[in-house]
Amino acid sequence: GELRALAGRLALLEDREAIRELIATYGPLADCGDSAALARLWTEDGEYAVVGFAAARGHAEIAALIEGDYHRALMADGCAHVLGPVAVQVSEDTAVARGHSVVFRHGPDGFAAHRVAANRWELVRTAQGWRARRRTNALLDGAAAARVLLAAS
Amino acid sequence: GELRALAGRLALLEDREAIRELIATYGPLADCGDSAALARLWTEDGEYAVVGFAAARGHAEIAALIEGDYHRALMADGCAHVLGPVAVQVSEDTAVARGHSVVFRHGPDGFAAHRVAANRWELVRTAQGWRARRRTNALLDGAAAARVLLAAS
Amino acid sequence: GELRALAGRLALLEDREAIRELIATYGPLADCGDSAALARLWTEDGEYAVVGFAAARGHAEIAALIEGDYHRALMADGCAHVLGPVAVQVSEDTAVARGHSVVFRHGPDGFAAHRVAANRWELVRTAQGWRARRRTNALLDGAAAARVLLAAS
Repeated sequence: GELRALAGRLALLEDREAIRELIATYGPLADCGDSAALARLWTEDGEYAVVGFAAARGHAEIAALIEGDYHRALMADGCAHVLGPVAVQVSEDTAVARGHSVVFRHGPDGFAAHRVAANRWELVRTAQGWRARRRTNALLDGAAAARVLLAAS
Repeated sequence: GELRALAGRLALLEDREAIRELIATYGPLADCGDSAALARLWTEDGEYAVVGFAAARGHAEIAALIEGDYHRALMADGCAHVLGPVAVQVSEDTAVARGHSVVFRHGPDGFAAHRVAANRWELVRTAQGWRARRRTNALLDGAAAARVLLAAS
Repeated sequence: GELRALAGRLALLEDREAIRELIATYGPLADCGDSAALARLWTEDGEYAVVGFAAARGHAEIAALIEGDYHRALMADGCAHVLGPVAVQVSEDTAVARGHSVVFRHGPDGFAAHRVAANRWELVRTAQGWRARRRTNALLDGAAAARVLLAAS
């Protein structure tokens, strides 16, 4: 009765907290180059689509993005993958989170906002906790494809 | 007794979560141009004051900010309204949240931090959940008016 | 039994919320110059190490960073200390939080990302709630010292 109702409300907050934590972990793992831990934020067959740049599927391909020349050059220059707060909708065992990412890159003139992008995370509850099954990232450079990622639904 | 105490603590966390979600939703709605949903983050007579730029009251005026030429030009260029984490104080049926907003704009030389502002949200619990009754936004360009928005109390 | 288990899960969410709130409060307090309240985010003997710039210990030294010439010049120009979402690991009465900070500074050409840094917060539960016992901040300019702050563990 009452106890069960409380338990359900608590479980929803825990779900939201776990999703927030997962997304907050991406940036630190990217910036310290921990490709294996970063890939495990996704399900085994999870997808990470960076529109116009890369489409990785599964842990090995996602880890390869972090181990690749492009990301290693970013880290050598100095970079920060700052993922802002997310709006989160949980529906039983799946969830959608929407928010921004900003990649700052260090250069001879200081820091610049190298990429500013829209992100849509599709998440799923697994036996190991919440994981991403698909993250789509697109530059907010005026393209409608990026804007639509941020739309509710 | 004990169950009621737990329920009260849980309700406070739910209040904070709802306020955080409301504020995290603003940026995605602004960037995808969903003026109607964005306006509904406020109460019917809610106010959105952008110091030195605009003062909108009520859903129609707030929606008009998003439908207006200035915002449509931002969206056409490419923009990201990134609202950072907020410090939140809840007092029964009202709350205050303080935090930063950064609007990135895309241009020929990449992304620039177009506006960096202080925000003070005054929120109220309604039958439909937490809503903003007043948001004040001011550029952090050295003006004392912006700094005071971030002060506690 | 069941009630106690719920209470434990609720307490963990409260801990995480308190830590998130503490860190979300830093930026607003820094930008409005409230050095005393800012220093109280740390324990009495807490440390704030800004690698290559400052090492402050205790409330008086931490407050002095905010009252000093460097910070006052930032405030006069216009600044925003934006601390992004943090990844948080709680272990009983201590916790570690990792995340980014971006200091925007206003100048004749608008806003620039003046500092983009990695942050590692070591926190402790006190009789007054969670406090920082050590925050380390290092520019993400390619130096390994900054990257390691963001690593899990």
